[in-house]
Amino acid sequence: MALIVQKFGGTSVADLDRIRAVAARVKAAVDEGNQVAVVLSAMAGITDQLAALVSDMAPIHDTREYDTVVSTGEQVTAGLLAIALQTLGVTARSWLGWQIPLRTDGVHGGARIEQIAVTELHRRLGRGEVPVVAGFQGIGPLGRITTIGRGGTDTTAVALAAALGAERCDIYTDVEGVFTSDPRIVAKARKLNKITYEEMLEMASVGAKVLQTRSVAMAMKHRVPLQVLSSFSDNPGTMVVDEDEIVEQELVSGIAYARDEAKITVVKVADRPGVAATLFGPLSDAGINVDMIVQNVSDDGKSTDITFTVAQNQLEQSIAALEAARSKLEFERLVADPNVVKVSVIGVGMHSHAGVASTMFATLADKGINIQVISTSEIKISVLIAEEYTELAVRSLHTAYGLDDD
Amino acid sequence: MALIVQKFGGTSVADLDRIRAVAARVKAAVDEGNQVAVVLSAMAGITDQLAALVSDMAPIHDTREYDTVVSTGEQVTAGLLAIALQTLGVTARSWLGWQIPLRTDGVHGGARIEQIAVTELHRRLGRGEVPVVAGFQGIGPLGRITTIGRGGTDTTAVALAAALGAERCDIYTDVEGVFTSDPRIVAKARKLNKITYEEMLEMASVGAKVLQTRSVAMAMKHRVPLQVLSSFSDNPGTMVVDEDEIVEQELVSGIAYARDEAKITVVKVADRPGVAATLFGPLSDAGINVDMIVQNVSDDGKSTDITFTVAQNQLEQSIAALEAARSKLEFERLVADPNVVKVSVIGVGMHSHAGVASTMFATLADKGINIQVISTSEIKISVLIAEEYTELAVRSLHTAYGLDDD
Repeated sequence: MALIVQKFGGTSVADLDRIRAVAARVKAAVDEGNQVAVVLSAMAGITDQLAALVSDMAPIHDTREYDTVVSTGEQVTAGLLAIALQTLGVTARSWLGWQIPLRTDGVHGGARIEQIAVTELHRRLGRGEVPVVAGFQGIGPLGRITTIGRGGTDTTAVALAAALGAERCDIYTDVEGVFTSDPRIVAKARKLNKITYEEMLEMASVGAKVLQTRSVAMAMKHRVPLQVLSSFSDNPGTMVVDEDEIVEQELVSGIAYARDEAKITVVKVADRPGVAATLFGPLSDAGINVDMIVQNVSDDGKSTDITFTVAQNQLEQSIAALEAARSKLEFERLVADPNVVKVSVIGVGMHSHAGVASTMFATLADKGINIQVISTSEIKISVLIAEEYTELAVRSLHTAYGLDDD
Repeated sequence: MALIVQKFGGTSVADLDRIRAVAARVKAAVDEGNQVAVVLSAMAGITDQLAALVSDMAPIHDTREYDTVVSTGEQVTAGLLAIALQTLGVTARSWLGWQIPLRTDGVHGGARIEQIAVTELHRRLGRGEVPVVAGFQGIGPLGRITTIGRGGTDTTAVALAAALGAERCDIYTDVEGVFTSDPRIVAKARKLNKITYEEMLEMASVGAKVLQTRSVAMAMKHRVPLQVLSSFSDNPGTMVVDEDEIVEQELVSGIAYARDEAKITVVKVADRPGVAATLFGPLSDAGINVDMIVQNVSDDGKSTDITFTVAQNQLEQSIAALEAARSKLEFERLVADPNVVKVSVIGVGMHSHAGVASTMFATLADKGINIQVISTSEIKISVLIAEEYTELAVRSLHTAYGLDDD
């Protein structure tokens, strides 16, 4: 007997039949003798509809009222699942953020979870009741409903699992687990049985959309074992665990890519101390995250070219911020290129093995793919290349690191 | 400067443009120097959709979860109107039942309001803020969301007006006010400028759908002046007030009708003491309300026929309850007739004037309409007639009592 938190995403609760299927799955876990708490998303598409109502009413709006409106989606699914469970003979009740209470800070629209009261939930779990928790929402310091950002239901589930001391947090979604690469472009991608928190974090941060970065970071911090699995099959999923729980660590666990990058080159900026601060200050002030950065010394020795990447949807804003600071920066011109992709090789094993980077560079060179920018971390190597080479690069690297399914 | 509660129904907040129009109307009242609190319904049709989701999930369900689901409709409109008001420069915030708190008993799906905390609302009204209250919902004794029954937003508004000590409660709807009869069948129906609580109560209870019976009874009890008016025009509506505020009282204020009645005749039931109790006991046990009753002595002197009316949607259930008690009741047979209508003449003036009833009977006789059952109260005479005469009867009575618009 274990205490398990099960989280079901929007496609898993998209209509009444799917909610009934979720109820059957929860009942099965209860019948096996487990204590089960459930965390739910809104029906697929509903949060977007509610957010659109608010934005159509006023593009710039009171985020406290935004939270009041959009949090209703999870309130509906929580009530419906509680009823579906009761129909199967399982004792269940819905819990809204303010009822638990799940306390957050006051940053509406993107609140951080501060504390979850679990005494009453433990008492009810102990007598076989299933708490059905509305995800994505909490209560702020002034008694208003807060939401914890898009994808926040994963975070709610992990935080609840940590607070309850659960043995596992199962994240049910519409894919079978975490793959060595995106199966839509790599036919030979394999489902991973296990992956470390660190690798999952890197994969989430460079484009793998299976889990929210924030929820993985929280699971890692609290050492909550996560399982990613499909609500449409009975296959085991991928366990996200500590490094020492993986006996035979692969050198490389996966190849990820992110198409939503854009490259900016600042051509012939005066090369003097503090130029980087002068350059990136205005971007930071505008709330723009800069990702990969490379600096070249130009021929004349007095100026330099600086290249960096930003999120594609912040490209225009970035250009505007740099142009506004032009007089201070003294650059010749800006060159923007949205047609780039960041391809990343990820693996905990690589920090103890040489040659991982050179395999990557040789593989890409062999296919005639030019590397524009490189960045590395302990367990990841990322390169920026022209977007048209995405599939070729990802498939070639998948083969080169021996990840192909046989 | 006055403190006014404004209530807007589902058609008044059916989409974003209408919510913007509501915001403009609230702003106008604020700009005139009034303190304004608003109570809202869900968008037209939404409560039905949410209730259908719950019923489709399980026809018989936990009403606590029903309340959790259906209360979201008002949560959405409250948030949206607060944003619309802010956009116009009016300080506003949404208030959910549990945030006020608006405390109710624990009868989910049909809770009664017990207490409304108004100190904080008064403080905010005093500094020019508009509280936008989600109607139809409260918080029960165990911290669960309750709903106060269909049409409960009227009741929320009146209860809030009473608790705040408001000078008036304006009920905005999709009609211009209270009419002498249903304008859809009486072309010459007039809008009433004033009507007493008692008359409004009788009209609401016999089919006029402008206001919920419960909200009128509450307004009468707390002497809250009500105004019924249209959110689609700027015309004054109908004031519902104390009798002594109406200087020239009409003899008759209106003609109402209710088609949702059904007649049952119990033929040749043994005529002995206690027969009525024996007859109506099983109906009462089954939760069936009996309305009009008439008893005839039959020719043989040993048996009697008893005729009464029930709500049409309870007809089958009533027949079943009587058949089940047949051995005790000893009747010959049951005759059911759903094709009847109850037509009522209502007026506070009638209790001090003779001749109101005889005018009614003479008018119907003159048109060849047979009266099947009669019931009277201090300020109302109701007759049951064949449904096919509805329009003829209502129009003839409207003319006979001098109510026609010139």
